[in-house]
Amino acid sequence: MNGWMAQPIYVGIDLGGTSIKTGVVDAFGRLVHVHERRTEADRGVEHVIAGMMEAARQAVRECGYDWNRVAGIGAGIPGFIDMRAGLVRLSPNLRWKDVPVRRLLEEAAGLPVQILNDANAAALGEALSGAGAGCDPVVCFTIGTGIGSGIIIGGRVFEGAHGMAAEAGHMRVVPDPEAVKCGCGQIGCLETVSSATGIVRMAREAVEHARMDNRGGRTKLADLPRPLTARDVFEAARDGDEVAGAIVDRAALYLGRALAAVAVLINPQRMIIGGGVSAAGEMLIDLIRGHFAREAPGLYRESVDIVAAALGNHAGVVGAAGIFRMGGGPIG
Amino acid sequence: MNGWMAQPIYVGIDLGGTSIKTGVVDAFGRLVHVHERRTEADRGVEHVIAGMMEAARQAVRECGYDWNRVAGIGAGIPGFIDMRAGLVRLSPNLRWKDVPVRRLLEEAAGLPVQILNDANAAALGEALSGAGAGCDPVVCFTIGTGIGSGIIIGGRVFEGAHGMAAEAGHMRVVPDPEAVKCGCGQIGCLETVSSATGIVRMAREAVEHARMDNRGGRTKLADLPRPLTARDVFEAARDGDEVAGAIVDRAALYLGRALAAVAVLINPQRMIIGGGVSAAGEMLIDLIRGHFAREAPGLYRESVDIVAAALGNHAGVVGAAGIFRMGGGPIG
Repeated sequence: MNGWMAQPIYVGIDLGGTSIKTGVVDAFGRLVHVHERRTEADRGVEHVIAGMMEAARQAVRECGYDWNRVAGIGAGIPGFIDMRAGLVRLSPNLRWKDVPVRRLLEEAAGLPVQILNDANAAALGEALSGAGAGCDPVVCFTIGTGIGSGIIIGGRVFEGAHGMAAEAGHMRVVPDPEAVKCGCGQIGCLETVSSATGIVRMAREAVEHARMDNRGGRTKLADLPRPLTARDVFEAARDGDEVAGAIVDRAALYLGRALAAVAVLINPQRMIIGGGVSAAGEMLIDLIRGHFAREAPGLYRESVDIVAAALGNHAGVVGAAGIFRMGGGPIG
Repeated sequence: MNGWMAQPIYVGIDLGGTSIKTGVVDAFGRLVHVHERRTEADRGVEHVIAGMMEAARQAVRECGYDWNRVAGIGAGIPGFIDMRAGLVRLSPNLRWKDVPVRRLLEEAAGLPVQILNDANAAALGEALSGAGAGCDPVVCFTIGTGIGSGIIIGGRVFEGAHGMAAEAGHMRVVPDPEAVKCGCGQIGCLETVSSATGIVRMAREAVEHARMDNRGGRTKLADLPRPLTARDVFEAARDGDEVAGAIVDRAALYLGRALAAVAVLINPQRMIIGGGVSAAGEMLIDLIRGHFAREAPGLYRESVDIVAAALGNHAGVVGAAGIFRMGGGPIG
């Protein structure tokens, strides 16, 4: 097959602190292949950039395409990203500050490159080819160790004035008496209660509390091997453990409250819940829907869908590649 | 001067429940003239549409322009507006439901017409020619009887999936024990505490409370002629009345909290406070800035301006006319 006659393909990279996930996406937005390797961020920026390039070439080779069919490379990166400048302003996960990733990758690849925040990439993937296909606007929440989110308007990433839009994890939703400190320095952020980290923290506190109390409210969380995980809490809740059930419900309450605020501000056609914690499945989504219905005005209750993500942990690579299908770059 | 050789002008209409404010705006976005007349909404849709047309013609005549220089008419209307369809879906103030205002005005005027929500019009006016000029994105809050808001991205109105975006007045910011019912059916909305109506309600409750209590905390609000107004509360606060001061501070607290949520979701370059209540001046803005700084993560504290509106109660007519200067229509 002659590369220059064929449909273009796109490479999407989901760069994380531990692994580089690299996908090949065709002109129809279909994910053809995924390659994964370790990031080895401790070996420095140049090593990681070289690793991304090798991963891209290998992923394309592995699915039998010519490299010259690649029309662009998109990379989702955790942290504060300036899409217009192609700059990683700050990535605590990678320990990068002001790294011109777009230029470095463009020089290495000789191809157009776009970079964006990883939660924005996942949101774009779901909006273009996943649970949000055909909807506009779409807001997607990625619930894992932290809580990321992305706002997609007209098929493009909305990044605000300084690339800091859609940080739903840092909406302050927990009232003062029960608010704890967040990594961002603020207290009571959504992330402190509804992320995997928040759920595990609440579980540890509940176990500690039950032990000190030494009465009633016994929870099987106390008998599980440490360290506890969010999955343990969801499983115990599903098995009828009341303490675990209350923790999951609390995580869902604050998500429902945050989604209600997002609904009145953004009026998305669809809101999508993805990420590791959401893999707990419909239980969490149903609880979120219930709390959302109690926290949002009636008109929004009827007009906003809340659904589970469809692309699993491939949303990021699909979205990073997808940025080229929509003309590239952010909105605004 | 021959109309067809001259620069175009635009008519902006701010349609309210009691008055039709009509402005003439030149090609540089300058407000040349304002004409005002009564709405008489009780006389029906046709009467109001005819009144808007007469107001437009008279405003243009009053400033000495030829009618054939008018390139378009924009109208800001309270309620849920479908900009794309040119339809007033629901306007409780006017008692209109599913009224095709754009078509009716276009037929009467023989000119392009755009309609939009009145708070969106005010936001667009401030973003294009007022306190937000040169900034992107801009979020503008109009604090009066209720609380309206508008999100302007790239000089265009962001209206969401069903024209219901930017309803910041219905963000739920008041915690349960002190939350009261809002007109929207939900409890604890920003509008219930930080609008003129909310401020007057809190003042009435405080006076009642002081009377029943019959001890300390005496407030001069108790001695004022009824009905109390929000202006009375601001003036008493400025004169050192502690009860009034606490009410103003509470209104500012919840505004600061709402602005913090808007900041992390939208990351506006500038947030603007306008409307009748904000005419109380820098006192309210300063209090809001203080609460915002306590409620928002550090990065946002440093990067978002909070300023007073610049166009006063002309923001709506300037914005309604301005929709033509930016290519018209909503974003997305």
